[in-house]
Amino acid sequence: MLLAIEEGGGRSTPPSHADALVWTDGDPSRDPEALRTVLVSCPARWVQLPFAGIERFVDAGVISPDRVWTCAKGIYGPATAEHALTLMLAAARQIYVHACRRSWIEVERGSPERRLAGSTVIIFGAGGIGSALLSMLAPLGARVIAVNRSGTSVAGAARTVRTGDLPAVLEEADWVVIAAPLTRETRGLFDSSMLTKMRSDAWLVNVARGAIVDTDALVDALRAGRIAGAALDVTDPEPLPQDHPLWALDNVIITPHVANTWDMALAELRGLVSRNVAHFAAGQPLEGRVDPSTGY
Amino acid sequence: MLLAIEEGGGRSTPPSHADALVWTDGDPSRDPEALRTVLVSCPARWVQLPFAGIERFVDAGVISPDRVWTCAKGIYGPATAEHALTLMLAAARQIYVHACRRSWIEVERGSPERRLAGSTVIIFGAGGIGSALLSMLAPLGARVIAVNRSGTSVAGAARTVRTGDLPAVLEEADWVVIAAPLTRETRGLFDSSMLTKMRSDAWLVNVARGAIVDTDALVDALRAGRIAGAALDVTDPEPLPQDHPLWALDNVIITPHVANTWDMALAELRGLVSRNVAHFAAGQPLEGRVDPSTGY
Repeated sequence: MLLAIEEGGGRSTPPSHADALVWTDGDPSRDPEALRTVLVSCPARWVQLPFAGIERFVDAGVISPDRVWTCAKGIYGPATAEHALTLMLAAARQIYVHACRRSWIEVERGSPERRLAGSTVIIFGAGGIGSALLSMLAPLGARVIAVNRSGTSVAGAARTVRTGDLPAVLEEADWVVIAAPLTRETRGLFDSSMLTKMRSDAWLVNVARGAIVDTDALVDALRAGRIAGAALDVTDPEPLPQDHPLWALDNVIITPHVANTWDMALAELRGLVSRNVAHFAAGQPLEGRVDPSTGY
Repeated sequence: MLLAIEEGGGRSTPPSHADALVWTDGDPSRDPEALRTVLVSCPARWVQLPFAGIERFVDAGVISPDRVWTCAKGIYGPATAEHALTLMLAAARQIYVHACRRSWIEVERGSPERRLAGSTVIIFGAGGIGSALLSMLAPLGARVIAVNRSGTSVAGAARTVRTGDLPAVLEEADWVVIAAPLTRETRGLFDSSMLTKMRSDAWLVNVARGAIVDTDALVDALRAGRIAGAALDVTDPEPLPQDHPLWALDNVIITPHVANTWDMALAELRGLVSRNVAHFAAGQPLEGRVDPSTGY
């Protein structure tokens, strides 16, 4: 990361003399208290966080309004969207069945494989992940309904609706993809009532944060066949314990939070730091600015 | 299919009075001899075949130059390309490992998941499948080298080379996707010598015909780690026997010829028949015209 700072025209210095603080990822740095301690004696006007989701730092009250805060929101969008697309295709094309069977079967009429062409996809949270996923779905011939807080029209979506209107559009969806940050508004949003509004042939895909979904309600919906399946890169709790009922369901695909792996992220983060250091030096707007009032 | 014929402005009649013959899919009709028998007393000037690959009919000598022949080439391209993309993503994102493991693992630095972004994809056979796959790969940030017989530049590809130049470009590829018809030129083309020219971190993806790959040579290359893996929707032989060594390899994904299932195909075929009946009645060029000299 030092190289990225230098590429942006900056140089490293002890925190007590820093104009800006670039916080890197890793086990100790995931603790908001570690950052709070460093900031006590750090005059930095700008703090760059390496995470896309910063809810723990918001909840801990570390994100003070007297500094400019940036996070990595958006830059991990394409990698995470690619994983969302992977999960959708793995479900649609029955890869989670075929790849694990390890024997040939004769596929006849009425087989369960389906295409994304002609399907309707709800993307909940049309930020960096959502907009990247929208562009990936276009050549596949899927129709997208984007859902965001403001209802501001999202480019490429057939329609955009506000979060409050999500229950009303759920029944249109073959696929519901969660790509929103975890906030007070989104925590537990996909509860029993919301899942009931999905169609019984629809899949839920979550590449955002596990806690946006009420896991017990999801297990109930899957067991009862109220939805067709779930493809999850994030779970609540995480890691998902070995005795969790989700593992036993045959209409569930689980990947262990790999939508944006360490290696994928590092390459993107280096680019962001380099660009933001250059912007900061030039007094230009920074990428990934955090709004302390909303927490993302 | 009768409805599709009527939609195109035609009407059904016994073969002995037909101007055109629409041959439908199904077990007896996959036998070229069944078609030969019907054609003896059928004056049809045009024959529509329901298949994209018609090598058995060509080999049987049924495709006579005194009639106009059309097949379903091209129309199944998007469905098959979607499956090729699925296999690539399932390999890149380790879905064939994660989905079958059914337990959580902590993913650390250096984990094997990768993105298609920044990768180089060779698409061998840039027809209907290839061009659809090209458009699907664009928003994912992959670079495509198209390979076709003529070397005629393919839209959207970074480069197009002739089949004869395939060995020279193979080492550039992270992914080699076979999307070509099975012909005299392509049968067994991916033999030991060709596979050796691929990189040890590259995957072979086949959604075309199993016999384009020398299966024994593929098994050898996979066992020796000369290529990273293979994702196959088609195999030779097919069905792949339960005791075949491909099943035992952990860097292989096999799906049972589902890139374009019966249900996916029927929807597309109905559209094609309707359009071609209308073209025929109007004396316009037909879609999917077969060149008897090349056999596709």
